[in-house]
Amino acid sequence: MRMVDMIEKKRDGHALTKEEIQFVITGYTEGSIPDYQMSAFQMAVYFQGMTVEETAEFTMAIVESGDQVDLTAIDGVKVDKHSTGGVGDTTTLVLAPLVAALDIPVAKMSGRGLGHTGGTLDKLEAVPGFHIEITDKEFFDLVNTNKIAVIGQSGNITPADKKIYSLRDVTATVSSIPLIASSIMSKKIAAGSDAIVLDVKVGTGAFMKDLAMARELAGEMVQIGNQIGRQTMAVISDMNQPLGYAIGNALEVKEAVETLQGNGPEDLHELCLTLGSHMVRLAGKADSTEEARKMLEEVIQNGKALEVFKLFLRSQGGDTSVIDDLSKLPTAQYQIDVPAKESGFVSAITADEIGTAAMLLGAGRATKESEIDLAVGLVLHKKIGDPVKAGESIVTIHSNTEDVEAVKEKIYHAYDLSATEVGPVTLVHDEITN
Amino acid sequence: MRMVDMIEKKRDGHALTKEEIQFVITGYTEGSIPDYQMSAFQMAVYFQGMTVEETAEFTMAIVESGDQVDLTAIDGVKVDKHSTGGVGDTTTLVLAPLVAALDIPVAKMSGRGLGHTGGTLDKLEAVPGFHIEITDKEFFDLVNTNKIAVIGQSGNITPADKKIYSLRDVTATVSSIPLIASSIMSKKIAAGSDAIVLDVKVGTGAFMKDLAMARELAGEMVQIGNQIGRQTMAVISDMNQPLGYAIGNALEVKEAVETLQGNGPEDLHELCLTLGSHMVRLAGKADSTEEARKMLEEVIQNGKALEVFKLFLRSQGGDTSVIDDLSKLPTAQYQIDVPAKESGFVSAITADEIGTAAMLLGAGRATKESEIDLAVGLVLHKKIGDPVKAGESIVTIHSNTEDVEAVKEKIYHAYDLSATEVGPVTLVHDEITN
Repeated sequence: MRMVDMIEKKRDGHALTKEEIQFVITGYTEGSIPDYQMSAFQMAVYFQGMTVEETAEFTMAIVESGDQVDLTAIDGVKVDKHSTGGVGDTTTLVLAPLVAALDIPVAKMSGRGLGHTGGTLDKLEAVPGFHIEITDKEFFDLVNTNKIAVIGQSGNITPADKKIYSLRDVTATVSSIPLIASSIMSKKIAAGSDAIVLDVKVGTGAFMKDLAMARELAGEMVQIGNQIGRQTMAVISDMNQPLGYAIGNALEVKEAVETLQGNGPEDLHELCLTLGSHMVRLAGKADSTEEARKMLEEVIQNGKALEVFKLFLRSQGGDTSVIDDLSKLPTAQYQIDVPAKESGFVSAITADEIGTAAMLLGAGRATKESEIDLAVGLVLHKKIGDPVKAGESIVTIHSNTEDVEAVKEKIYHAYDLSATEVGPVTLVHDEITN
Repeated sequence: MRMVDMIEKKRDGHALTKEEIQFVITGYTEGSIPDYQMSAFQMAVYFQGMTVEETAEFTMAIVESGDQVDLTAIDGVKVDKHSTGGVGDTTTLVLAPLVAALDIPVAKMSGRGLGHTGGTLDKLEAVPGFHIEITDKEFFDLVNTNKIAVIGQSGNITPADKKIYSLRDVTATVSSIPLIASSIMSKKIAAGSDAIVLDVKVGTGAFMKDLAMARELAGEMVQIGNQIGRQTMAVISDMNQPLGYAIGNALEVKEAVETLQGNGPEDLHELCLTLGSHMVRLAGKADSTEEARKMLEEVIQNGKALEVFKLFLRSQGGDTSVIDDLSKLPTAQYQIDVPAKESGFVSAITADEIGTAAMLLGAGRATKESEIDLAVGLVLHKKIGDPVKAGESIVTIHSNTEDVEAVKEKIYHAYDLSATEVGPVTLVHDEITN
C-alpha cells in the first residue's frame, strides 16, 4: 500500500477499507507516513467526509495505537461521561458522586488541562490534602468499595490522536466532524468504560456554534460507539451562556456541593439530572430515565450523594471539613462587584469572554507552565432573561489583586442587555440515542 | 500572517490576496512554512480552486522565487512554444527553424528530461559535434545573427515550483488545474519570452484525458499569461495516437528534416503550421494566421527553413552533412518489422504503450542516470483509420538488440483493429485566445 493512493482514494470520495485505515494510522503513528501526507489526507477527509464504518475503524485504529485501560477489576457497568467543553461546567464534580451514590462505579482518570479554569483535578485540589497519587490497585479497590475514585492518567493512551490533533491544529482541519468524533471517541474507548454519555455543547461559548453541526457531531459519535459495541448516547446542551453561576476552581467546588445538597443553580441541577439519568439507565440500574431521575433526586434529598462525595475526598486524603463549612475553601482577597451600567433584561452572555475574564484572574492555565490560583474566579448574579437595574451587581469578581479593569471590561463586553423582556433559554436541545 | 489562516481561508472558498499568496510561496520556498501546511493548502486548492487573479499572482510569486532569464539583449518579439507532453512530439525540432526562417528570434533554453524519448537537446545530439556549451554572449549573438540558438538551462529558475511539484506528486494534488497551470506558466514566464503559444495535448496518450479538462487548463493558462502581460494562446491538439511516425531521437531528427523539406507526416506538418502561424502572428510578422501560414509554407517550399536549421546546427558545432544525407544519422543494428496478426482498420493506438516500447529499446531515460541510445526507436506505418492486411508490417522496430519480444508485445497491445472502417481523427480540437 502507498499513502498517496489512500489520499487519492479519499480525495475522490471513496471509502477506505479497514486495512487501509489501519495502514494510515499505524504508518503515521510509527513515522513511516510523513506529516505532509497525513495533512493532505485530513484535508481530503474535511471535504469528502467518512462513512460511519470508516469513522468507527478510524477510531479503533487510533485506540489500538496505544495502551488501553483495563477496568475489568472493577465490578459493574462502568459508565463514563464526556463533555465537549464549555465555560463554568461543573457537571463532572456533581455527577461523579451523584451516580456513585446509586452504586454505579465511577473510575475516573484525570489530567490537567489548558483552559478558562483548571480541570476536574485542579478543582478537587481546592480541598486541602486531596491527591491522586494512588496505585492502580488502590484505585480499583477504592472504586469497588466506595464506587468512586480518581487517578492521574498514566500509560500511552491514543498516541495517534495526540499526533493527529497537533497536525490538525496547524493545518485548518480541526473542524471536520468525523475527525472530531473519532478523536473524542478514541480517548473515551481507550479509557475502558462500558458505556458513554456525551454532553455535546452548542452555542456561542462552545466549539459547535449551531445546532445542526452539534446534532451531526453527536449522531456521529453515538454511531461510532454503538458500532464498536459501547453503548453510547448524547445530550445536546446549551452553551449560549455559562452553566451555573460560578467560574473558578474553589468557587465551582462550592457550587457542586450546593448542587449535591439540592441548592444549586437550576440549570446545573437540571443538566446533571438529565445526564445522570442516562448514565443510570445505561448502567442498568433503572429501566427508564424517568425512574433514574427519581432515584437521583432521592440521593440528593436524603444526603447520600453528598456523603459519597465526602467519602471519596476523604479516601484520597482530602480534609472534608471544608465541605461541611464551605467558607473554609480557598478564598480570594477581594470581592469586587460589577454594577450594571443600565437597566434592562439580559439577552446574551458570551461565555468565551466570561471564561477569558476568569483566566485573566488566574483561574486557568494559558500554557502548561502556568500556575493556577484556586481561589479566584467569577460569580454571576444574572443569567439570560433576568431583569437588571442600573447599578445592581451583575457579577462578583473574586480576585487576589485590586486591579481588575481588564476583567471588568471583558464582563461588560460579554453581557448584552435588551430593553424588552427576553424569553427563557432552552437548556437541553436534544437527546440522541442512535 | 499565519499559514494556518491562509489554509482556512482557501478551505472555506475565499480568494487570497496578492500579499497572502506571496507570503505562502516565499515562506514555503524559504522553509519557514513546512511541507505539512503546504500540502493541506494544496488539497484545499484542489477542492476550492483559485480565481484567475489568484492563479496569476500564484504564478508570479513562483516566478519571483528564483532567477528570471533576461532576453532584452535579443532584438524582436521572442515567442516561446510549450507542449504539455505527448509521444513522438517532434514539433519543437521543426518549429524552431521554421519560425526563425521568418526572422522571429528563437532563444531556446533546454534541459535533459525523463520520458519515452530524450528531450530536444538529446535529439539534436544525434547530429555529430552539436553542443550547447556556449556563453550567454555567444547565445545572444547567435540569436541576433541567425535568429536561432539553444543553450543549456542555468540559474535557479522557479525553485518554488520544483519544491511544490515534488510535494504534489506524493500528496495526490497533481491533477488540480490551477496548480498545473501555474506550474507550467511560471517556468515559461521565468524563461523570459514576450509571447507564448501553448500546445495542450488531449487524449489517451496525454495527461489530460478529456477535452473539457484540456479546455479548462488551456483557458486558465491563457488567462494567466494575458493577466501577467505576456500574450498567450493555446492550441488543443490530439494525442489519441503518437504524432507523426517516428518515436526515437535520430529517427525524429530525420522526420523533422523531412517535414522542413515538405515531405513529413501529414499530422506533424499540419500541427507545426497551426502552432507556427500563431507564433508568427504573436511575433507581429503577420496580421492573421492565414497570412502567417502562407509565409511558413513558402519558407518550407523555397528551402529557407531547412537552410536555417543547418546554419543553426553548424553554428553550434554540428556536422550538417548528416542532414544532407540522412542515412549518416546514427542507425540501429536491427530493423525488425512487426506484422499485423489480422486484417482490419486501425481504431486506436495507445500512445503511452508506444512510448514505453520506445523506452524499453533505450530511446528514453527511466532515471536521471540512464544512458540514451540515440539510434533506436520505432517507426509506425499505420495510424488511426488506415487499413491493415494480416502479415503487413504495422511498425518497424529500430533496435541494437535482437531480443525485442517485450517491445513487440507492447506494440500489439497498443494497436486496436476494427473490422469496419474508422473515421478520420480530429487533429486540432480547439484554439483558445482568451
